[in-house]
Amino acid sequence: SRTHRIAVIPGDGIGKETVPEGLRVLDAAARRFGFDLQLKHYDWSCETYVQTGKMMPDDGLDQLRDSDSVFLGAVGWPGVPDHVSLWGLLIPIRRGFDQYVSLRPCKLLPGSKSPLADRGPEDIDFYVVRENTEGEYSSVGGRMFPGTDREFVSQQSILTRTGTDRIMKYAFELAMTRKRRKVTSATKSNGITFTMPYWDERFAEMAKNYPEVTTDQFHIDILCAHFVQHPDWFDVVVGSNLFGDILSDLGPAVAGSIGIAASANINPEKAFPSMFEPVHGSAPDIAGKWICNPIGQIWSGAMMLEHLGEKAAADCIVQTIEKLLAEGGPRTRDMGGQAGTVDVGKAIAEAV
Amino acid sequence: SRTHRIAVIPGDGIGKETVPEGLRVLDAAARRFGFDLQLKHYDWSCETYVQTGKMMPDDGLDQLRDSDSVFLGAVGWPGVPDHVSLWGLLIPIRRGFDQYVSLRPCKLLPGSKSPLADRGPEDIDFYVVRENTEGEYSSVGGRMFPGTDREFVSQQSILTRTGTDRIMKYAFELAMTRKRRKVTSATKSNGITFTMPYWDERFAEMAKNYPEVTTDQFHIDILCAHFVQHPDWFDVVVGSNLFGDILSDLGPAVAGSIGIAASANINPEKAFPSMFEPVHGSAPDIAGKWICNPIGQIWSGAMMLEHLGEKAAADCIVQTIEKLLAEGGPRTRDMGGQAGTVDVGKAIAEAV
Ligand SMILES: CC(C)[C@H](C(=O)O)[C@@H](O)C(=O)O
Ligand SMILES: CC(C)[C@H](C(=O)O)[C@@H](O)C(=O)O
Repeated sequence: SRTHRIAVIPGDGIGKETVPEGLRVLDAAARRFGFDLQLKHYDWSCETYVQTGKMMPDDGLDQLRDSDSVFLGAVGWPGVPDHVSLWGLLIPIRRGFDQYVSLRPCKLLPGSKSPLADRGPEDIDFYVVRENTEGEYSSVGGRMFPGTDREFVSQQSILTRTGTDRIMKYAFELAMTRKRRKVTSATKSNGITFTMPYWDERFAEMAKNYPEVTTDQFHIDILCAHFVQHPDWFDVVVGSNLFGDILSDLGPAVAGSIGIAASANINPEKAFPSMFEPVHGSAPDIAGKWICNPIGQIWSGAMMLEHLGEKAAADCIVQTIEKLLAEGGPRTRDMGGQAGTVDVGKAIAEAV
Repeated sequence: SRTHRIAVIPGDGIGKETVPEGLRVLDAAARRFGFDLQLKHYDWSCETYVQTGKMMPDDGLDQLRDSDSVFLGAVGWPGVPDHVSLWGLLIPIRRGFDQYVSLRPCKLLPGSKSPLADRGPEDIDFYVVRENTEGEYSSVGGRMFPGTDREFVSQQSILTRTGTDRIMKYAFELAMTRKRRKVTSATKSNGITFTMPYWDERFAEMAKNYPEVTTDQFHIDILCAHFVQHPDWFDVVVGSNLFGDILSDLGPAVAGSIGIAASANINPEKAFPSMFEPVHGSAPDIAGKWICNPIGQIWSGAMMLEHLGEKAAADCIVQTIEKLLAEGGPRTRDMGGQAGTVDVGKAIAEAV
């Protein structure tokens, strides 16, 4: 039978609580759909950092390289600065494995509540496709004249043709698999006049290859406003690293699902393992109480299975989550219920 | 009596319809509160560009330099690219006159409707303070290896100490005039690791001078989510040029006031004229029909009077707008009414 090798990194805080539930559901899906999961566990985290001075060992990426996927919980803990924790674990995996697509579904699930008035599940169902390796998150920059009145900092935003074209292509290919076949580009070419006009140019160029796909584009300021006013306009939204980051938090926020949103960091060519993680963080305020919501982790597990070719199993998990929410199954406090993390995980695993 | 010299630039599209109503209300306020307005009219626009090849004459800034303020409608028209129209008129005035503060109120007005469920006027009432001259909108950048696979574009984001400190100071001073005395900083120092940590550093430094002011900071991604989920958290929000741009569209969008939002481009030292303009654009789709909403322009006029020291007159205009909306006065189509542009302008002018 088919075997998938999964590197499991619970990380920090509630990651240690959500990952076991994610695995519980993956295991149920494996039994039902007839595939095997070979798990390898890694305790890399802020604790590791405090003990060893490193978030992961020097050969960390090599240790992960043989896996088919990485299943991540959350990274970050008070006392360890973000530039240490994130840039010591999360970002090196994204970049080292050229996971150039960050894919995040924005979906109003039946039974969950959007902060928007008069919006139902049929109104909010789109994907944000985010460029995940370059753009505004660049490593070129510095500070000059420190400590003086002339002091300034500078950071380059970089768009390469390779990086831009491949993310556009991914967005259009994704749109081709969907009913509405629409791609919206996030730009700001009226204000950021070197990089963003290039983004527009490559978008227009790629669109020519997909005559069946409808396109439009908005400047990021008004696009954010449209997410709130007209979430029903969107199907696939493609953005640079920063714009994609913003839209993939705002999208789940308008869908009322920021606590349960899932995300995939994908290397579509499968030259390297891809990584799957919930959008939420390590939540120090509720960590250790086993009251956190495991759905973001479980949903990320479904995205992982889809990437591994187990589409039927992936669809089954997502439908099970939707059914459970719609039918008033156990829910954690953030969704107005009383259930614990494990209750929700077990309910989903059993239903799968 | 006091005289204020105003340069009036209706610009394009509905700017030609909203500016006369803005002036009508300013004129009423002048009569009631005993000051004089000396107006100079400029027809600079995309039409000028088509006729002369320039959005404004070469000595445009010099012509405006003697005014106390610029009262602008809207800039932009189909057929004239943004980098021509905006960078030929709007941006040169902002930068040439060192209008380094862009100030935008985000306010849920009584009688207008937020797209958010269960939110009333007491929940949404804050200011976005945007750095308006540097940051991500820089003029340093370019393209290399054009037309090849190695092609890339690059654009620097620049934060100077001068530019950063003065916008922080403005935000804290503004907070000191308000009841809640809170400043929120928009950052992204976990991802954009050269410029944004500097932004955080200067924010922390400036905060030391204002012990009475409460502060917090959020990364821009989650901050956008919070605008939707918790608009009641905010009092004064300070952001870089790009982050401020995004937040000052998203804020009015959650307040349901994007069609009527006002903005000020301010040089606080009054070394140069400041400029006041509605947030909306030239709206080619409804231009020429005299159905557009003049409230954004009128509200911008109130901000102008406040800047010119006519605080009583400014407050009177804002209160008149609020009262008119709350009491079901005439409203344009975008607010669910049937009134024309002039009806609304006249109603507000008369009430003032
Ligand atoms: C038109 C554009 C350049 C401008 C900006 O981004 O500054 C606009 O969005 C604004 O906010 O006034
Ligand atoms: C933690 C941070 C660096 C990260 C990002 O901006 O990429 C996060 O916001 C995300 O979206 O995964």
